[in-house]
This record gives sequence, structure tokens and C-alpha cells, in this order.
Amino acid sequence: MTNPDTAAATVRLADLETPCLILDADRMDRNIARLRRRLVSMGVSLRPHLKTAKSADVARRVMTSAAGPATVSTLKEAAYFAAAGVKDMIYAVGIAPDKLAKVQRLRQDGVDIAVVLDTVEQAEAVAAASRAAGHAIPALIEIDCDGHRSGVLPNDAHRLLTIGRALVQGGELRGVLTHAGASYGARTEQALVDAASQERCAVVQAAQILRDAGLPCPVVSLGSTPTAHFATDLSGVTEVRAGVFVFFDLVMMGIGVCKVDDIALSVLATVIGHQREKGWVLVDAGWMAMSQDRGTSKQPVSQGYGLVCDISGKPYADIILADANQEHGIVTVRPGSGATLPDLKIGDRVRILPNHACATGALHAGYKVVRGTSDVVEASWPRFGGW
Amino acid sequence: MTNPDTAAATVRLADLETPCLILDADRMDRNIARLRRRLVSMGVSLRPHLKTAKSADVARRVMTSAAGPATVSTLKEAAYFAAAGVKDMIYAVGIAPDKLAKVQRLRQDGVDIAVVLDTVEQAEAVAAASRAAGHAIPALIEIDCDGHRSGVLPNDAHRLLTIGRALVQGGELRGVLTHAGASYGARTEQALVDAASQERCAVVQAAQILRDAGLPCPVVSLGSTPTAHFATDLSGVTEVRAGVFVFFDLVMMGIGVCKVDDIALSVLATVIGHQREKGWVLVDAGWMAMSQDRGTSKQPVSQGYGLVCDISGKPYADIILADANQEHGIVTVRPGSGATLPDLKIGDRVRILPNHACATGALHAGYKVVRGTSDVVEASWPRFGGW
Repeated sequence: MTNPDTAAATVRLADLETPCLILDADRMDRNIARLRRRLVSMGVSLRPHLKTAKSADVARRVMTSAAGPATVSTLKEAAYFAAAGVKDMIYAVGIAPDKLAKVQRLRQDGVDIAVVLDTVEQAEAVAAASRAAGHAIPALIEIDCDGHRSGVLPNDAHRLLTIGRALVQGGELRGVLTHAGASYGARTEQALVDAASQERCAVVQAAQILRDAGLPCPVVSLGSTPTAHFATDLSGVTEVRAGVFVFFDLVMMGIGVCKVDDIALSVLATVIGHQREKGWVLVDAGWMAMSQDRGTSKQPVSQGYGLVCDISGKPYADIILADANQEHGIVTVRPGSGATLPDLKIGDRVRILPNHACATGALHAGYKVVRGTSDVVEASWPRFGGW
Repeated sequence: MTNPDTAAATVRLADLETPCLILDADRMDRNIARLRRRLVSMGVSLRPHLKTAKSADVARRVMTSAAGPATVSTLKEAAYFAAAGVKDMIYAVGIAPDKLAKVQRLRQDGVDIAVVLDTVEQAEAVAAASRAAGHAIPALIEIDCDGHRSGVLPNDAHRLLTIGRALVQGGELRGVLTHAGASYGARTEQALVDAASQERCAVVQAAQILRDAGLPCPVVSLGSTPTAHFATDLSGVTEVRAGVFVFFDLVMMGIGVCKVDDIALSVLATVIGHQREKGWVLVDAGWMAMSQDRGTSKQPVSQGYGLVCDISGKPYADIILADANQEHGIVTVRPGSGATLPDLKIGDRVRILPNHACATGALHAGYKVVRGTSDVVEASWPRFGGW
């Protein structure tokens, strides 16, 4: 610190252009260690979802090895992480037939990427593409454990077996996969434990149906950040997928999966105005920097567009980003809280915790990495987006 | 079309990777011509807001000259458009003092960029930076015409004059500026006419207060897409700013500013699944492709995350993107409409009109340009994002 060369090179939070995305790597490391410990003790492997971070630097830290396993939500993620050395991926969005050529190119490059499907049409397309290339594309059948999105009902043996039998006509039936997306709506610890149990039962039941019919099912994959942290039994499960746990966010805090000081991501913003008679402080982080995710608005405590902290990351009690335009945010006291607005002057800086780490991250080109309450920016890690 | 070389080079909508952003340039050209005609007839100039498009190709078409004038919402936009030859810009977000150095560098490069402010602290910072550089930075005082965000109340003569007098101690008082953001909540034509009138009265009143006190006020700037299209009197106004009019969107349609076939932007998506018993079609456009802007949810007709059209851009009656996850969208019949879900098969393509063009555009790296019902992609225009 006393070396003038080092001092000249040091970038601090106060030096950054705003708005920008701040990552507290201490919190991230703690979040990763917490889930890893938990899954090791339960004897299942972790296949982190890289859609939250979209960064090779974060991926390297969150994966259990440099080659994976990992989960991706786009084929651009797959290609990017393949170039970074990841060899074992599941593309966990239902496959469109015209994306199979890209999947095959990745596989030819030595990446074991599997696809996901829940219709016989997709299974036939995968089998046909596999036969045409003389190389089996592995696929997992998506199971609908809670009705929130896609997947085959776990007791729909007819549909499961029709898909499985269509797939093995050239393709490879790698296993079954589910995601308890409805767990984001849980409000109690018991509801989280129940969502995890329902998720496990669904995917294990589907695996059994396939195996009883003589079909292979080596992989039994489930996961969501809430259920990964509240499952009490993972017997029959081979791997857990989770994404947002690496950073956590206000929605996860509202569910009870993390505490406020586990949230590793924030947006640094600068005060640009006041409407004093209204109790408003204007900042240069609007929805373009925070996203329009209002996930906490359905929870008992709405955080508006984000929870406001001082520049060191310490939350102001009940101060939220109550409203947002494209590049303007309005900081106010949470209605009904009786809190006092801090004395924020033009040019002062705040950090704002996001409702949803995946959505907020997606709007930024990279992370400025700090550790704990230090204001020294240790690194800049690029992110990517798009398809 | 019969030339094999040309045929080989032709890219069609069916060839594109999904999701991606489609721009119908015929509709865009029509939207631009409509507002330009209107403002010419009213004798005011157009200073389009380039935050909607963030594209040099669109900017060139929407501006009245290659050098501007234009409005921007970030200094990254300012630098990008300056590099593309734009010489006359207003950075229409309250200036943070630590951004003045960047403004000064742009001005040294020959770009007449003005800043916006509404506090005496900002005015003093602009004046001080101007004196230090020996070059006056021009600033407009933001006027609060409808209480929706920032700005000085138009009848707050004390605050207006204090700011104006602080500014001219080295800086340049360029004029006054307002934005009728509350017009987005209008529900009737009369409410739009009234919002436009209120916007004009506020900014003209503030200009008069400054001039009566002997301060300069050459620019009187106002605008929003709704009020720009419904103002009946713009006397005393020198320029109109508007952004979303270039593309329009479902929020603007809900307000009554455009028709569905004026909306120039859509997201091309592929069918990836069904939940037939629920009447759901799954597509590969989730909120990452559409944004989480639910602007129509407060309007009489909610469009969910978007209105679904066939690949030619023709809307299906009452078929909406009712729900969305990161990379999954759920297409359904609008509740209560009694419409019939079209027979969309795995791999079929749809185009989805967005609630908010600015928010949806921000998630994509570029535009695939088509014209009318043609499926030929004429061009790819890059977009940029970030700060």
C-alpha cells in the first residue's frame, strides 16, 4: 500500500463509472462453499447453472472441476464455456430441432453436451439427427414436478416410454431432469422442504418407470437454488443443478434461503438529484442497470427495484429503490417503515442489491470484483450475453 | 431471385437462430415520417432520443441530419454517436459531477453536448468545471411538469433563478427541458392532449421566469412519444424529444398512440414444447429475450410479456406470451378472450411484439431487418448497450 507504483494502479469503488456491477468475491466464495459442503455430505454431485454468471471467471470457481459438470441455458453459453475448457454440459432448455446441428458441432469438438426434451417429436428429431451423423446425441427427458413450466408428468408412463423408445432409435437416453421452479413461491421452511421432496419424488419415479421398461436412465438430475438448500433426502438422485446460489439475491432472501449479507452482487450508483419535499433521492441506476424484475413484489416484503446500501455494502434500514425509469432510479424510505432517509448528497455513491441476480447481471458487460468491506477493485471479470 | 449467387446469399427469417430481434424497416420509416411531418407542420424541430435504438443505422434514419440533433441517456451513447458523426446532443439524465470530465472531452472533440440538472449543487459543479477548463459547458434546467421523476417545479422561481445564476458563473445556461413521463399512464385522447398541454405550459413558464430575470433561455425542449403525437399547441417550444416512436410497442398501442401494425420491433422465437392439457405452447423466448417490462399489465388489456404473431408479423387474435422464465416463454390464449390456440408445432416460428421497445431492444446485440411481410433479411444492424 505504500509502494507508489501499487498505489497508482489501485482502483477503488469511488473511481468507477456508474452504474456498474459489483461482485463481492468473499460472499461468492462462501456461497459456493456452503452448497458444495452440503451436497458432498449428501453424496450427490453439483452441476452448477452457468446462466446466472455468464462468466468464465465465475464458472471456474463454481464448478467442481475445470471441465465441469455444468448446466447452460443457451447454446451461446455452451460454445463460450466449451472454449473455456468445459467438457460436460446439459443444455437445459427444450431442444428445437434446428439447434441440433450446433449441438453436434460441439460434440464433434469433444464436448459431452446433452439436450433436454419432453415430446416425442423432439425425441424423433434427436434420433434422426443422431442417425444421420452416425453419432448418438444424448438427451434427458424433462419431468414436470410442479406444473410451473415444461416437462412430462412423472406418472405419465405412456408419454415417458414413447419418448424414451423414440430416442433410443439412434439417440441416447441419458436420463431424466426436473426443476422445482415453483419453489421460488415458497414462504416457509416446511414449504421448501416439501418442494424439494416433491422434486425428488417426481424425477426418481420417472427414472423408475423408464428402468422398469428396460430403458437406460443413468442420470437423475434435479435442482433449484431453494430446493438444493432445503432437500433432506436425495436418494436416487445423481446430481443437483442450481444457479443463483453463487450470488444470491433479494428474492432468495425473501424465501429464506440466504441472509442479506450473503448477497454477493450489487449495482454501484451515483446520486444525481433530489425531490426533497417528496423524500426522493435520484440515482443513475434505473431499470436498465437493475432490470425490471420485481420478484419481491409478491413476497411479504417488497424491495421495489432493490435494497439500498452504502458504498461499503452495508444496507440502509428500509431504504429501497422504489421506482425506476430507464436510467433514473428513485430511492425512498420503504412505505410504512418509518425509517429515515440518509443524507445522500449529489455525487455520493450507493450500492443496490438486486431482486434477481440473473436478470440484473444480464444487463452488465462485466463484474468489478471486491472483497468484503474493502473498496479496492481487485479485478474486472467480463460477462457475455445474447444467443 | 433466379440468380443462383443471389439465392445462395439470401437469408430468410426461417434461417435465423432464435431468439432474435426483428425490425420491420417499412414500419420504422412510416413511424419516422409520421412524427416528422407532424412537427414540421407545427414549426418545431425534432431531437430524437437514441436510447431506444442504440444503433447508428437507426440513428441515421431517425435524425433530421447526420450531425443531429439527438438526445442520449448515457455518456456511452454520446461517445458512440459522436464517433458516428453526431455533433449536437443533450445528455438528458441529471448530471453527476464526476461525469463532467467525459462531457468535456466530447466537447473538446467538437461535439456540442449539453447536460441537464435540477439542483444548485450540480449547477455549481458545472460552472466550476467550466471555469477550470476555460470552456463553458452548456446545461439545461430540468423542469418537473407532472411530478413523475426529477426537475424543478415550473413555478419555483427561487430555485430556478438560483440554479440559473449559479450556472452562468462560468457555465452556459442553454435553456429548459421537460419530459411528460406521466403521459404513459394516459387512458384517453383527451388525457393525452391535456398531458401535452401541461408539459408545454410548464416548460414555457419556466423559460419566461428565467428570461424575465435577464437570464438566457434559447432552448425550450419537451417531449415524450405520447405528447409528441397529441400536442395541439407547441408555441414557445423550440424542440421536441421522443424515442420510442421510431419502433412503437404494445404500451404505446394501449395508450392509443399507434396501431398494432405500426409496431416495428418483434422477437423471433421457435416452438420448443407443449403442455396440451393446459393450452400452453412453450417457445425459446423468455424474459431474457422479451424483458420483464409488464407495462401493459396496468392498461385495460394486458399483453403479458408480448403479443404473438405468425412469422410474417400478423398477430394471432388474443394469443399472448402469458408467462416467461429466463429462456422459456409460455404462449396461451388471453384469459377470457375465448380465442383458439393456433396449431403450432415443434420447430414452428412466431414473432412476438414487445410491451416496451427500449427494454426489449436492450437485451439484443442487433436487429435483423425485414420489410413488411417479406421474409428476406435485408440487413443486420448492430446495437450496443452498457455504460
